[in-house]
Amino acid sequence: MNYSSVDIKEKFNLFAETWSPKIIGEMNDYYIKLVKIKDHFTWHRHEETDEVFIVYKGNMRIYFRDGSVDLCEGQMYIIPKNIEHKPYAEKECEMMLFEPKTTLNTGNVNDKFTKEKLDWI
Amino acid sequence: MNYSSVDIKEKFNLFAETWSPKIIGEMNDYYIKLVKIKDHFTWHRHEETDEVFIVYKGNMRIYFRDGSVDLCEGQMYIIPKNIEHKPYAEKECEMMLFEPKTTLNTGNVNDKFTKEKLDWI
Repeated sequence: MNYSSVDIKEKFNLFAETWSPKIIGEMNDYYIKLVKIKDHFTWHRHEETDEVFIVYKGNMRIYFRDGSVDLCEGQMYIIPKNIEHKPYAEKECEMMLFEPKTTLNTGNVNDKFTKEKLDWI
Repeated sequence: MNYSSVDIKEKFNLFAETWSPKIIGEMNDYYIKLVKIKDHFTWHRHEETDEVFIVYKGNMRIYFRDGSVDLCEGQMYIIPKNIEHKPYAEKECEMMLFEPKTTLNTGNVNDKFTKEKLDWI
């Protein structure tokens, strides 16, 4: 049988748009996603789930209502459910996400950033 | 409030032993783990869950009963539940794992590699 790996760097080369998570794998009820981000996202929270952010390339900041955390390449932050947050990147940043399949990118908010349907790459 | 990130490289520097996954984060009912591997592991399968392997540094191979897949730095493989597999690395390899909290490293097998209790680092 033929088995093939998923190359994360190659997957990042397949898209350019920001704030549009792409699915690269599924595990039980979860997706592994890649996303490129730049500038400010929308304030939101996920009422049903925690959310894993891992920075693959670049730098980003997660704003909370009472503080913030800066992440650079190879750093991870797990946002607890129900905590309002707003991702931000001054320059383009590449991130990996682990989230339930049902997670909406803008959580409890529906606005211009909302992506109801994500593509597999 | 003070928020702090998890630095994956720094976490790998905190331990040396192979085949002993360390927990670096939790998300819902899942753990994010780091593990160093070298030589052959035991054949096993996970009856209840898929398993995400991401190579952080080095190279490794996953043997299946009917083939194998080679992973290098930045590559991912998701092992479907119930599929028998055996990780192997010729030289030391550093990996990130994403698994349910209840997952035992040797799955359906209990042998010298089995780690019932994992440490947080």
